Amino acid sequence: MFETNLIGFGLAVGSSVFIGSSFIIKKKGLQRAGASGARAGSGGYGYLQEPLWWIGMFTMVIGEFANFVAYMYAPAVLVTPLGALSIIVSAILAHFLLKEKLGKLGILGCVLCMVGSTIIVLHAPGEHDISSVDQIWELAIQPDFLLYIASAVAVVLVLVLYCEPRYGQTNIMVYIGVCSIIGSVTVMSIKAVGIAIKLTLEGYSQVAHLQSWIFATVSASCIITQLIYLNKALDTFNTAVVSPIYYAMFTSLTIFASAIMFKDWAGEGASDIVSVLCGFITVLSGTMVLHGTREPDKLPSADYTALPQISWVVHSNGEIWKQKENDELHGEFVAIIHQDHFK
Amino acid sequence: MFETNLIGFGLAVGSSVFIGSSFIIKKKGLQRAGASGARAGSGGYGYLQEPLWWIGMFTMVIGEFANFVAYMYAPAVLVTPLGALSIIVSAILAHFLLKEKLGKLGILGCVLCMVGSTIIVLHAPGEHDISSVDQIWELAIQPDFLLYIASAVAVVLVLVLYCEPRYGQTNIMVYIGVCSIIGSVTVMSIKAVGIAIKLTLEGYSQVAHLQSWIFATVSASCIITQLIYLNKALDTFNTAVVSPIYYAMFTSLTIFASAIMFKDWAGEGASDIVSVLCGFITVLSGTMVLHGTREPDKLPSADYTALPQISWVVHSNGEIWKQKENDELHGEFVAIIHQDHFK
Repeated sequence: MFETNLIGFGLAVGSSVFIGSSFIIKKKGLQRAGASGARAGSGGYGYLQEPLWWIGMFTMVIGEFANFVAYMYAPAVLVTPLGALSIIVSAILAHFLLKEKLGKLGILGCVLCMVGSTIIVLHAPGEHDISSVDQIWELAIQPDFLLYIASAVAVVLVLVLYCEPRYGQTNIMVYIGVCSIIGSVTVMSIKAVGIAIKLTLEGYSQVAHLQSWIFATVSASCIITQLIYLNKALDTFNTAVVSPIYYAMFTSLTIFASAIMFKDWAGEGASDIVSVLCGFITVLSGTMVLHGTREPDKLPSADYTALPQISWVVHSNGEIWKQKENDELHGEFVAIIHQDHFK
Repeated sequence: MFETNLIGFGLAVGSSVFIGSSFIIKKKGLQRAGASGARAGSGGYGYLQEPLWWIGMFTMVIGEFANFVAYMYAPAVLVTPLGALSIIVSAILAHFLLKEKLGKLGILGCVLCMVGSTIIVLHAPGEHDISSVDQIWELAIQPDFLLYIASAVAVVLVLVLYCEPRYGQTNIMVYIGVCSIIGSVTVMSIKAVGIAIKLTLEGYSQVAHLQSWIFATVSASCIITQLIYLNKALDTFNTAVVSPIYYAMFTSLTIFASAIMFKDWAGEGASDIVSVLCGFITVLSGTMVLHGTREPDKLPSADYTALPQISWVVHSNGEIWKQKENDELHGEFVAIIHQDHFK
């Protein structure tokens, strides 16, 4: 008992290290790719030829796999909080390797995303054991799950067609929204594909089933979309801000989708439901705090000299920097005030 | 079943309205008393002659009583979140009646205090039923509960003797720390007094028991200290900041004290313990956010003109105000930057 818990503990911590690092490695890869061609944030795909990006992808897959296996060895109450540590790992690595400053509010946002996600997962309704592709197909074509899929597609379309050209480069929720919503669908269809593969390996071939191929197609297209938008988010915003928001939104939406599919709220006490709501509010608060600390380094340096009257400059994370006495303005400030902060 | 829940619901909402308003009424009373004599924040007790302050006290007692009764009619999962609404009530009333600006971060802090406290209460360990003064006395003189009392007294002494003269007027945690720590002891001793009164009324007089009088003395001195420091906090800081921090700290410490006294963690699952920890981290985060938004209006107006080079001024809640073109400096700014914000 103690030994299996220890294996689960090790796997969960390992998975956090891998997933946390994968964000940094991918970002490094995106930066390199962006230096020689169109940036991912502007629709470029040069990163596909960048080995560093592929190493990041590989690291992520290993991390997700270790996390998946950890749940087999140790209870969720141990694995989930440890899994949320990936946020801390990526924030620390981003601080040292990418020189991203997170600030007090940023740290607070990370902590809130971790705590909120943990509460949600701990009090989420359970899932039935699924033993056939047909069974999961039945669950997937329930009217209310179809409604969830339809709403997800509608929101994603609005985000991609309307919001992305307008706010994609300034509002972090556009790219991460697409990733997370698509992600919740990915998890559900990947489950079906996993069952199909398992059954086929056990001798009950699912290759002739149309459903298997539908799930495989959905999985493949969801994964690709999710990756493209995660790259855009990573390329445009601070890694230390992207990773906690992505983690929290992905976790919340996956649990929401799973609750609609499995409808296991019957076994839930009122206390669990209120706890999940509280966790969701916490996650939302953390996301809002982090959104307020988004990366300022995209502003052109020319802006500094365009504001000659500045005596103090407020970093977007709330820190305030004073101009040195009798010094030239440019080069003195590490950050610049966002115009929309002014009254 | 539905009807008793409805009564509990009504009582809980009513209690929130009463408790939330009581903060505002008391603050108004303190302001009036401060206008004609020494302020409570500076050690004055003129508010004892101010009818408005007594109305506030009375409102608070009614509110606390309604909250207590609500738990008899409806489950904690319903009463606790509704009780936390008092924070919202006092924030809204403070906005309109006291013209206190809370700002985005302030609202976030309130929400986090509410959500965190709710999670803590929902997953806190249960309490045994206590049926005699001797029984609660036995629990109170356990070594680890005595250690809690000793630590509480030590921390309060440090806060009152060392911190209060130095940081009392600038750091909100000094006054509220004293209130909340003393408050957790109040709750425990009031329980004992309640049992003594109940038993005496039932014919088993507890008047001859020394323990009854010890509990009564402790209760009385704790309540008075708690009230004095709550008045100091209310008189010195924004009501909308005092009420959520007080609520969250009081709730957390009371549950902590009760957990030490009743040691009912045995029946707790790991999931509950992790949830309580998460709730505690959420409360702490909310407190930190609110602490950053403390009232700036205590700074002397002379400071404004002492800083002629200011182009922008940062409100302590994070808002930034620009100086009007070609205008005199004084009167232009609603807030002033705290010196310790500068690098």
